[in-house]
Amino acid sequence: MENTLYLPEIREMLAEQDTAALQEFCKALHPARTADFMGGLESTEVWQVLQYADPSERVEIFSYLPEATQLEIVRTEGATEVAALITELASDDRVDLLQNIEKPLVQSLLGLLPAEDRRDILRLQAYPEGTAGSVMTTEFAKLAESMTVQEAFQELGRQVEDLETVYYLYIVDEQERLRGLVSARNLISAINKPNMLLQDLMDTQLIAVLAGDDQEQVAQKVARYDLLAIPVIDEQNHMLGIITHDDVIDVIREEAVEDAYRSAAVAPLGQGYFDTHLLSLTWSRGIWLAVLFFAALLTAIVLKQYEARIESWAWLSVFIPLIISSGGNSGNQSATLIITALTLQEISFRDWWRVVKRELAMGLLLGSGLALCGILSTYFLFEETRSFPGIAIIPLTLLLVVICGTCTGSILPLLFKRLGLDPALMSSPFVAGIIDILGIVIYMNIAVILLTSI
Amino acid sequence: MENTLYLPEIREMLAEQDTAALQEFCKALHPARTADFMGGLESTEVWQVLQYADPSERVEIFSYLPEATQLEIVRTEGATEVAALITELASDDRVDLLQNIEKPLVQSLLGLLPAEDRRDILRLQAYPEGTAGSVMTTEFAKLAESMTVQEAFQELGRQVEDLETVYYLYIVDEQERLRGLVSARNLISAINKPNMLLQDLMDTQLIAVLAGDDQEQVAQKVARYDLLAIPVIDEQNHMLGIITHDDVIDVIREEAVEDAYRSAAVAPLGQGYFDTHLLSLTWSRGIWLAVLFFAALLTAIVLKQYEARIESWAWLSVFIPLIISSGGNSGNQSATLIITALTLQEISFRDWWRVVKRELAMGLLLGSGLALCGILSTYFLFEETRSFPGIAIIPLTLLLVVICGTCTGSILPLLFKRLGLDPALMSSPFVAGIIDILGIVIYMNIAVILLTSI
Repeated sequence: MENTLYLPEIREMLAEQDTAALQEFCKALHPARTADFMGGLESTEVWQVLQYADPSERVEIFSYLPEATQLEIVRTEGATEVAALITELASDDRVDLLQNIEKPLVQSLLGLLPAEDRRDILRLQAYPEGTAGSVMTTEFAKLAESMTVQEAFQELGRQVEDLETVYYLYIVDEQERLRGLVSARNLISAINKPNMLLQDLMDTQLIAVLAGDDQEQVAQKVARYDLLAIPVIDEQNHMLGIITHDDVIDVIREEAVEDAYRSAAVAPLGQGYFDTHLLSLTWSRGIWLAVLFFAALLTAIVLKQYEARIESWAWLSVFIPLIISSGGNSGNQSATLIITALTLQEISFRDWWRVVKRELAMGLLLGSGLALCGILSTYFLFEETRSFPGIAIIPLTLLLVVICGTCTGSILPLLFKRLGLDPALMSSPFVAGIIDILGIVIYMNIAVILLTSI
Repeated sequence: MENTLYLPEIREMLAEQDTAALQEFCKALHPARTADFMGGLESTEVWQVLQYADPSERVEIFSYLPEATQLEIVRTEGATEVAALITELASDDRVDLLQNIEKPLVQSLLGLLPAEDRRDILRLQAYPEGTAGSVMTTEFAKLAESMTVQEAFQELGRQVEDLETVYYLYIVDEQERLRGLVSARNLISAINKPNMLLQDLMDTQLIAVLAGDDQEQVAQKVARYDLLAIPVIDEQNHMLGIITHDDVIDVIREEAVEDAYRSAAVAPLGQGYFDTHLLSLTWSRGIWLAVLFFAALLTAIVLKQYEARIESWAWLSVFIPLIISSGGNSGNQSATLIITALTLQEISFRDWWRVVKRELAMGLLLGSGLALCGILSTYFLFEETRSFPGIAIIPLTLLLVVICGTCTGSILPLLFKRLGLDPALMSSPFVAGIIDILGIVIYMNIAVILLTSI
């Protein structure tokens, strides 16, 4: 959402060292907007501007900068200033940031941090990417169940400065084990009962996740239960951190991008289109393109068996792309419908028979429709397709190929799910590859049987 | 997330009219879990169970039931009880629900509602599907800027019962125009300054949306600014409602599903896989399958021009599927990368030249890689591909087809964006269709030139 409208003004303010104007620029807008307005500046200029912001604003604006700018600032600016900034960053954000920095620099920065921050970073870094632990923040509101409502308000007033959110207050015992939860909403509704104990107010029907849980499952839980944040615990119910709604939105968007890439056979990039190096982008694509090439080579091997037939009836080869694309498209539709339904947990493997019946029925309907299109369109193309048996080949093939497409496209993702694999692996290009081969076998056999038997 | 584990127990409790156990069942779990456990019950049984819940629990559990069950309850149970339930539902949820109910029933239900609820429903129904207005709720915390912190806490304590969220408190003037925002976090941090005025505490750097804005833009704003909720205003800055984080998550998931469907050429369903009628699902697919069929028919028309050549060199036809799938796959990859980057606003049309240069470079690299695969694999398949000119045809074609795929796949979405159309329309099946035709022209021309000239 970079906005280059005010770049000349910002540069002028910097050149003139116009303190008042720059302070106002850092303060007047939402920090995300301030970050957007600096989108066209060099990272050193951004850092100069940030010196005019007060520390809490500075870290806010910094956290909304593009990752590439953040990394450049950390790499090029003075270690002491950068360390001060890192101390202020949210605990999950700074771990993400340091992950992309060279090891020696990380070591020297860690040495400049207070011991507590250093420990926190090292602990969070230990969780593998994609787990709940890797996206959680360790800053959350902690209260004891023996507190009264009034004490809770006072305690919150003290804790609030260091916290990202105070909308869920977690009740823990002396061993930091999670006992319950009081929402700010419930606390406010009890404002006229100042002596009520939190243990009488707290909710004990807790929805939590384990630190090792997959971040996609976490996102689904938060979405299903309409939560603002979800606590992350260990096997002994110790409270480790929370995952907040904004990180959940990021996870959902990230997973949607990954699914889109997978459906186009691109290995996940982990970065933006222009931020990814040309060679690593080529690799992400090339590896799958090569796999698909060798899968498609099977079509050539199969077709080679029919080479003599094609020599006799060359007009048959004209319809090869039409037939395999019809099969591929119908299979692709089925695969996408089933993968989406599996992801949203609308269906599971045990529904396979219901799915197959539906897809068979749809294949029959769609195949008949395309067969009709086939009769009409081929009639005008070829002499050979105007009388029997030529007229029957294309429609009959289309009918069978589409049925075969819908069935294969729906069964393969279910099968992958059953085998514990990601059903999305069986998405378009692979389904299309398999159906291509089946389509050619169906087409050639129908053609040979009809043309030779009559 | 239906869970059928406890169905026999629930049915037994109903048969025995075990009041204590059923009340406990409605109370003991998170309402979403209670709803999941009733997943296998008939809607009349679900309604019987809900009679044992107290009114606020009942509406909570109801709101987590699958849409089909909700609709059946509204259609079959007594209008008075249903109307009482509708009064309690969140204002955005009940509008969604009534949208799928037959008009006469809606009219009779509306007649049973308090005038205020009726007006609220009619007002929200007026917003077109997919706009901010259609997903907003009209229940939000409203305060005046002349209030003190202490008065605000007291006022919130009064309003809280009717509100879904109290995490953002909206400051409005007498004409209900939005003046500012105080987060519960800020209010709590001012707890020791009871006489501070809200006008000194409130944030006036407001991020808001207009009621007519597209819900996808709304979701992007909420994600960009890490908001819990976003206010919806009219052109005169009057506060109309808010959109909360859970609705934003729903919008993001909905849009991801729509994008997935679009990339597989399935028209949006608006319902689950099994909830959609077989014929309407067939229609959603058939319409696009037919469009793609007629696009693919062009490949047959093009190939027909080369029929005589295929008759002489039948082995050429064996590689047709391999070549068009290589072009289609590389084009599909480019299209997906560009569409994703456009959706995430990482790139815009003005980057087209940078994109083309990148895709040209990648096409060259990927095409050379596939050309190498092509030489190696065809060598073992055919006599004709072991010496010049036969050996050069497949690799040269693959190189050009892949370059043509990456360029077409990246330019088409950018062009669609520029024309104000949805770039996702230019997704896989369409890009593949276009590249199929180009691929055949390239292949046949290279083959004819090489085979006839030497």
